[in-house]
Amino acid sequence: MTGEGAEPGTTRPGGRTARVRAAVLQATGDALVEKGFAALDLADIARRADVGKTTLYRRWGTTAALVADLLVDMAEQSLPRADTGTLLGDLQANALLVRRTLTDPRQGELFKAMITAATCDERTAAALHRFYEIRIAEWAPCVEQAVERGEVPEGTDAHEVIRAVSAPLYYRLLASGDPLDEAAAHRAAEAATAAARAGVYAGEAGRVV
Amino acid sequence: MTGEGAEPGTTRPGGRTARVRAAVLQATGDALVEKGFAALDLADIARRADVGKTTLYRRWGTTAALVADLLVDMAEQSLPRADTGTLLGDLQANALLVRRTLTDPRQGELFKAMITAATCDERTAAALHRFYEIRIAEWAPCVEQAVERGEVPEGTDAHEVIRAVSAPLYYRLLASGDPLDEAAAHRAAEAATAAARAGVYAGEAGRVV
Repeated sequence: MTGEGAEPGTTRPGGRTARVRAAVLQATGDALVEKGFAALDLADIARRADVGKTTLYRRWGTTAALVADLLVDMAEQSLPRADTGTLLGDLQANALLVRRTLTDPRQGELFKAMITAATCDERTAAALHRFYEIRIAEWAPCVEQAVERGEVPEGTDAHEVIRAVSAPLYYRLLASGDPLDEAAAHRAAEAATAAARAGVYAGEAGRVV
Repeated sequence: MTGEGAEPGTTRPGGRTARVRAAVLQATGDALVEKGFAALDLADIARRADVGKTTLYRRWGTTAALVADLLVDMAEQSLPRADTGTLLGDLQANALLVRRTLTDPRQGELFKAMITAATCDERTAAALHRFYEIRIAEWAPCVEQAVERGEVPEGTDAHEVIRAVSAPLYYRLLASGDPLDEAAAHRAAEAATAAARAGVYAGEAGRVV
């Protein structure tokens, strides 16, 4: 478990079925990084994973299903939320984790490939959105605890705060191209914390600040 | 001029050269939206634009050069910044403009196609980053004026504040899939304003809040 979307299949237990899945998902990730979604090919992935083609066709059927399962696996394998005792500390841990994931040579390319695939494939888009839902739900209790501690107002939308931490880092990766350095991660966490404290994520938008 | 990246070639003056460029860039955008970057083809674009293939080859040479020129044109044609008298007002105008652009059926698909192309083509990535640089520089004076008015601290990084407005909207479009509604735009502006007021974008990250 090394990041927001950890490398699949390295340490997990399980029998032959789990081992096959791990090998296939690892091969799917490799192929995505090397060739992109459009060029994915079940026979090639079977070869890379050293698994029978029939198994792949029977169990997954399409490359979109493979990518969807890879995203399920990345969500399952990714790191649990932080619990540092302060909202800023927790959000900084989250921002640094997202930054580490997006700047990791393999993981960064994997996310770019999956986001690109999601722009043209509905099933991959649904799987990608589900991945973020799971990760956002994992980190939401950091905000809920901050509400309990009185750090941020009652009614703060925890999911919005967690999204706000990731957003500037994804914007740099995909749109503006500005550096994804640690300062950017710290700023993302600080901005989300400041906005949450000011009540931006509590109540209806357009009513606060 | 209808948005952050306006439709090229509708109202501008100019001679034959300008008309040819307008027709070619319109055709490039149409082809990008319909088929994506990988399937772009100079001969097809020449046909759509009703322009000689030789002109296209001589003047642009590659599809990457065409997309780069489309991005230059979108930056040139896009709307000037707002000047409402308050930072929140200006950032809300910006957020609503970005939202309108990304949710416009043609423009939204165009941005997705160009962002996707940028993940696998260096020249398109450079052109895309330049587009954002120009748009961010256009809106930065809103923050500089807010510093002069004493709304936000001295030393506030105007470009970071403008990036912070767009980021949550792009994150929804490309990653999480959450709705790009007006409430999301208002929140993006409010969050950037609150964080700027708190000093998050002034001085070094990791030192404030």
